Amino acid sequence: MKKVTIVGIGPGGYEDMTVRAINAIKDAEVVTGYRLYLGLVKDLIGGKETFCTEMRGEVERCQKAAEYALSGRNVVLISSGDAGIYGMAGLMLKVLEDHPEVETEVIPGVSACQSGGAVLGAPLVHDFAVISLSDLLTPWELIEKRLAAAAGADFVIVLYNPGSHKRADYLSKACDILLQYKSPDTICGIVKNISRDGEEHHFMTLRELRDTKVDMLTTVFIGNSHTGIINGKMVTPRGYRI
Amino acid sequence: MKKVTIVGIGPGGYEDMTVRAINAIKDAEVVTGYRLYLGLVKDLIGGKETFCTEMRGEVERCQKAAEYALSGRNVVLISSGDAGIYGMAGLMLKVLEDHPEVETEVIPGVSACQSGGAVLGAPLVHDFAVISLSDLLTPWELIEKRLAAAAGADFVIVLYNPGSHKRADYLSKACDILLQYKSPDTICGIVKNISRDGEEHHFMTLRELRDTKVDMLTTVFIGNSHTGIINGKMVTPRGYRI
Repeated sequence: MKKVTIVGIGPGGYEDMTVRAINAIKDAEVVTGYRLYLGLVKDLIGGKETFCTEMRGEVERCQKAAEYALSGRNVVLISSGDAGIYGMAGLMLKVLEDHPEVETEVIPGVSACQSGGAVLGAPLVHDFAVISLSDLLTPWELIEKRLAAAAGADFVIVLYNPGSHKRADYLSKACDILLQYKSPDTICGIVKNISRDGEEHHFMTLRELRDTKVDMLTTVFIGNSHTGIINGKMVTPRGYRI
Repeated sequence: MKKVTIVGIGPGGYEDMTVRAINAIKDAEVVTGYRLYLGLVKDLIGGKETFCTEMRGEVERCQKAAEYALSGRNVVLISSGDAGIYGMAGLMLKVLEDHPEVETEVIPGVSACQSGGAVLGAPLVHDFAVISLSDLLTPWELIEKRLAAAAGADFVIVLYNPGSHKRADYLSKACDILLQYKSPDTICGIVKNISRDGEEHHFMTLRELRDTKVDMLTTVFIGNSHTGIINGKMVTPRGYRI
């Protein structure tokens, strides 16, 4: 059988992986992925053959995984978080477009909106929108349109890839759009290095978020009009009467 | 220490749970939750004390968990999927509002948008919005507004609670709104009984989805304008050049 298993490993620690993800890596003959993420699961990989690339080596990683599968090797492609949420699952399926004989399995994992949300409290208990601020692969105009639409309909909003050295002002630009629809007092939270050394989180208003510095390892949560702070946790209510 | 641990168990099977969720249940003295979900993890619960209620017993469940915590018992509150995505985490934190001395921990799990997405392929690889069609706790007008906003900005959309006996026409009503913004040929997918006996999934266009019957155990995925079918899987591209 020719098969590629695309595995979401969650934020990085063994405890946050699903049993299915752990077993898939244990059962694999070859493990491929971004070098940093292979390092996170090196104890599971042990002495297995690996193939890793650096950032932006996504296409090469998938092509190599396809080669392994076509040669009959049991290959796992690692994705951080959930392989299906801004993860490698889509690209892997695309790379295999001309090889319908290769079976694929996607194993979900805990994504940053979930692990970060759990650190902050319960921000996503009502309708939410997930938006990446990276314009490497998406026109900035479309990102702006989505920010405006999500804010206008009072979604809780999670921002992935909110900033980097090159994109230092993107979060400010995004907040300026959100502030056209959401109150400047909207409760927000940011989580950095989720489940890793140096994890930190902070609560702030949308007005304060606008002038907050973030990096690629930060996930940003913007509440809806009912989101509040309860005992130091960010909580979006669902409407129960208690 | 007084503490409530709110645990997301994922779609229901042991393999789809995180190690952290499994350990939390194993370590608990008392397990509370909806009767059906306790049944899904009965092997982990073993002979422990449990407290369960039926559907709509959410407030009672949380109040009981709070009582256990206040009396010093190590209590776990079970939520299906992710405790933080339409799960019990928000209500539990609210119920504990007057008890800041009780520590809380939210353990994320695999939500239906992830487990269902993995069954379908990779529909959520780009920006997406998650909307519940249940108007038990949310005014229908707000749900309509969110559907229109998400469709107008070309989000991939995931619908939770898309229908029930009482709400048989809600999905059709939702699709009528989406069809004002999205092409009738938009690729959609539905997954029923995710990871359970009787799991089934189907692909269809948005026009066809409008006339499809669904129940509370179905999760609905509506693609963006670039979503397609590759080798029998629903794939939303991210924009890589290959």
